[in-house]
Amino acid sequence: MSEALNGLKRTKMCGELREENIGETITIMGWVQRKRNLGGLLFMDLRDRTGMLQVVFKEDVAEEVAIKGDVIRPEYCIAVTGVVVKRESINANMPTGMVELNVENIKILSESETPPIYIKENLDAAESIRLKYRYLDLRRPDMQSIFYIRHKASKAIRDFLDKEGFLEIETPMLTKSTPEGARDYLVPSRNYEGMFYALPQSPQLFKQLLMVSGFDRYFQIVKCFRDEDLRSNRQPEFTQVDLEMSFVEVDDIMTLNERLISKVFKEVLDVDVEIPFKRLTYKDAMERYGSDKPDLRFGMEIKDISSVVKDSEFKVFKDAFEIKGSVRALCVKGGSSMGRKDIDRLGEFVKTYKAKGLAWISLKDEEIKSQISKFLSEDELNGIIQSVEGKPGDLILIVADKNSVVFQALGALRLEIAKKLEILKDNKEFNFSWVTEFPLVEYNEEENRFQAAHHPFTSPMDEDIKYLESDPGRVRAKAYDMVLNGEELGGGSIRIHDSKLQERMFNVLGFTSESAWERFGFLLEAFKFGPPPHGGLAFGLDRIVMFMAGTDNIKDVIAFPKNQNAFCPLTEAPNVVDLKQLNELGITLIK
Amino acid sequence: MSEALNGLKRTKMCGELREENIGETITIMGWVQRKRNLGGLLFMDLRDRTGMLQVVFKEDVAEEVAIKGDVIRPEYCIAVTGVVVKRESINANMPTGMVELNVENIKILSESETPPIYIKENLDAAESIRLKYRYLDLRRPDMQSIFYIRHKASKAIRDFLDKEGFLEIETPMLTKSTPEGARDYLVPSRNYEGMFYALPQSPQLFKQLLMVSGFDRYFQIVKCFRDEDLRSNRQPEFTQVDLEMSFVEVDDIMTLNERLISKVFKEVLDVDVEIPFKRLTYKDAMERYGSDKPDLRFGMEIKDISSVVKDSEFKVFKDAFEIKGSVRALCVKGGSSMGRKDIDRLGEFVKTYKAKGLAWISLKDEEIKSQISKFLSEDELNGIIQSVEGKPGDLILIVADKNSVVFQALGALRLEIAKKLEILKDNKEFNFSWVTEFPLVEYNEEENRFQAAHHPFTSPMDEDIKYLESDPGRVRAKAYDMVLNGEELGGGSIRIHDSKLQERMFNVLGFTSESAWERFGFLLEAFKFGPPPHGGLAFGLDRIVMFMAGTDNIKDVIAFPKNQNAFCPLTEAPNVVDLKQLNELGITLIK
Repeated sequence: MSEALNGLKRTKMCGELREENIGETITIMGWVQRKRNLGGLLFMDLRDRTGMLQVVFKEDVAEEVAIKGDVIRPEYCIAVTGVVVKRESINANMPTGMVELNVENIKILSESETPPIYIKENLDAAESIRLKYRYLDLRRPDMQSIFYIRHKASKAIRDFLDKEGFLEIETPMLTKSTPEGARDYLVPSRNYEGMFYALPQSPQLFKQLLMVSGFDRYFQIVKCFRDEDLRSNRQPEFTQVDLEMSFVEVDDIMTLNERLISKVFKEVLDVDVEIPFKRLTYKDAMERYGSDKPDLRFGMEIKDISSVVKDSEFKVFKDAFEIKGSVRALCVKGGSSMGRKDIDRLGEFVKTYKAKGLAWISLKDEEIKSQISKFLSEDELNGIIQSVEGKPGDLILIVADKNSVVFQALGALRLEIAKKLEILKDNKEFNFSWVTEFPLVEYNEEENRFQAAHHPFTSPMDEDIKYLESDPGRVRAKAYDMVLNGEELGGGSIRIHDSKLQERMFNVLGFTSESAWERFGFLLEAFKFGPPPHGGLAFGLDRIVMFMAGTDNIKDVIAFPKNQNAFCPLTEAPNVVDLKQLNELGITLIK
Repeated sequence: MSEALNGLKRTKMCGELREENIGETITIMGWVQRKRNLGGLLFMDLRDRTGMLQVVFKEDVAEEVAIKGDVIRPEYCIAVTGVVVKRESINANMPTGMVELNVENIKILSESETPPIYIKENLDAAESIRLKYRYLDLRRPDMQSIFYIRHKASKAIRDFLDKEGFLEIETPMLTKSTPEGARDYLVPSRNYEGMFYALPQSPQLFKQLLMVSGFDRYFQIVKCFRDEDLRSNRQPEFTQVDLEMSFVEVDDIMTLNERLISKVFKEVLDVDVEIPFKRLTYKDAMERYGSDKPDLRFGMEIKDISSVVKDSEFKVFKDAFEIKGSVRALCVKGGSSMGRKDIDRLGEFVKTYKAKGLAWISLKDEEIKSQISKFLSEDELNGIIQSVEGKPGDLILIVADKNSVVFQALGALRLEIAKKLEILKDNKEFNFSWVTEFPLVEYNEEENRFQAAHHPFTSPMDEDIKYLESDPGRVRAKAYDMVLNGEELGGGSIRIHDSKLQERMFNVLGFTSESAWERFGFLLEAFKFGPPPHGGLAFGLDRIVMFMAGTDNIKDVIAFPKNQNAFCPLTEAPNVVDLKQLNELGITLIK
């Protein structure tokens, strides 16, 4: 049974009806959430995008309407016409709970089999089922509200950037490899056999070209692609808010983006984000939080206790100093309540970050316990406690190693302890920060050369250019990351627009002039014609919507996501294709 | 030479300066358009996105500034600080022509070689050069203004649809073949060797699924892909404004889109588009204009003169009636001034549309001339003239054949004559119309079967469903095209949401139940669960921006387009890739 609308118009949405509508004759359309008999009367809850309304079949309803009422089952799609009346038993949990619709007429627009998943909030169903029946999963009110948030966020971003004079300009999807270094998705060309397009990992080069074109302020909300093995929060295609500005310096880009973020959170969630964001240099972030994306919602900063133990006879500390490392500590407030087993587990935990071990000092009830007390003088022990401001009840955790290991281990440990002690339970804060002055290059041990930390067009800081050849590792970049609650949302940089400096940069990265030209020739060519100083930023729309929607699963914020194997259980993509198609493309399968 | 901004801020844009700014000290940044010496003084025009300003180096300028002035050449990117003064020789052709900037300080931000194309409006350069140096081509003010229009159009579309309760929801780029029937771009999967994603030709199936999900009103401005041989107005990737609505009928979608279009033209161009659009059925459009995308900016309608000549002995007419064709005519006002050669050329023209010939009657100076006068009685001749309302000075052109040939030939002829007579010269009208009631299916002579005229989910008109099996060619669809000045901008339909009707439709199209399921299984499955009545529309953003910008070249409205071979001369995509990449994908090249 499937009746046509035949001119019938919807006049109201289910969720908008209130007491002031009592007496109105209305038509609503939607899906039957549930159906029940109470006191001889038939009741249904009808659901649309806006909410739910109770519909009641009174005794005086026409027979054909009553018959339809009997036939209808959950998830049937129906249209109901009737009068809004005061509800007898008020339901304070429903926004429409003061009223109900007295059915006069009904159309069954389409029938439904019993759905394989419940259409309700907080569904606990296997991901494979949710993705296979994604259209039903998306009927659930919590999923609906995520896409409402996503729509509003994109809209707010566009409104803001439009007002600030940015033009949204579309860049190509069928393009050439970008220098980001992840694996590209390739698209075989039919016209040029043996040649391939690549789907963009980002519009980086195009947005720089648009600056050369004089567009001044560009943005785009754009799909990007990476063919990488998927971790939980990655998808093969993801959406970026990408922007670039001319005639600006680092601060201009940061303050603009702060205003952008604050406007979006206000408009979408009515939340006030504090601006300006806290700003930390990369060095600071590493030394204080052991991370380049520090979670600033809690303290527990890392303290350098090297000077206190610099003359210690303890071999672990001595070894660390010998390799120019350091000894650093976390002081866990109230941490002395942790049992020995817990602490041992933390010791195992830091080993996964290549630390050789974890030393601890427990300040339980004024009594100091430590597995390394025998290696330390009383002065050293007290010195440590003092320098981390240890109080009775605290637990001090120490790692000694080369700096990179110390930072990584203590940074991870800090987060692990916060999780364990539920320090952030019920925390609803959106704590934004900038991490700045990133290293320009990093040493690739495998390939035995320096590589760009960000990308090869990132500008060094003016005061460090002098070390570019002599000590590249020391050069800081005009690069910045936007961090929210310990996660990197995005980042950007001021780009090099001086072709001589660009050449020096390529030299440092070990490119010959030819190899640089081969990969980035068109950008280098463009830079011969008066490139403006420029810089920009990109951040993940999916990521920021996850925060806004309060989910830690990226699949929740993408309407039709892929699973961990980059497979779509709904459409069954990827799939086989006709041999004819491959022949046209000049490719064949390796058997 | 390349100086850093070093804290210098731009305070004004070049194009915004007027008399009221006189006396202000400002900093502008941009590109040198030209440079000249006049009366011993150095002048430059500086250009940014907003326009141009004259900059003058007075006698008292500091020596180092004067030196820089000497060095600077066109397209250098510079920053100029100085005082706005009244211009001595006013230039009424420039919006900033009342003032000039008295240089105090200058920074050369970057140098420029001599550009290979002129940075000026109405450039007449080879397309290959323009595309290779696209970043310079895009510096030209007319190109800049196109992307400003495009940005504003997208913004206005989004603003309107947002207000109307549409959610913008992103659908996948890595997906499965859609049923549109054009050739897909394929993307090999690394995880599933031998399998491929397809880039979407449209989000058709996904938007229908979103309606099943209850999103009610969806839209997206989205990239779509077709791997077809490119005609002049096609690109391998193009942008669609795609929307879908639930609980609506044909009229709801048309009126909403009329309001959308009228708002966009008002906001972007300040043009009032007349709404409601004219509406013609497909039958009407074919009979009156010989086209399903009629150009309604001028009349010259086709007239059916079959009844006048139904008993004619003229073999050409008799033959047409024998194959159930017709005899139809155009009356070209003032056309009798055309010479015999011109008319012969029109005869050749209609032959390219499969017409066997073109009969003509010239009403020059009351005297009637015709190459077929000897085959017609005086009554017939007068009857023809009367039925096309021929007046002295007119030219009547007649085609007799089967209807499809008559329509196509006369439809094309009508446009050809309009072009020849420059009927639309200086016409600035945006004449929108809807063509409705398209045939549901069309007969594919090659494959000897009916195929969907639009796509297999298009709903037949209720009153024609009864002919679905008995006479499919007679069934009209709830489909509509939006036409502007004789070009199809887009189209859509109400979809089938009744699975029984969908099955009948598949039968008509010759699908077995299995083959239908294999291709569209997930949509059919979804339709088991209470699909709402729904329909939608999609139109080309590129196309509409072309109209707005007054260009007939699609490449002008795409920042980085491909050439006719789907090749990008700028980035040189497509290109070769490493063998390693192909190995990972399990594919190899056919030698």
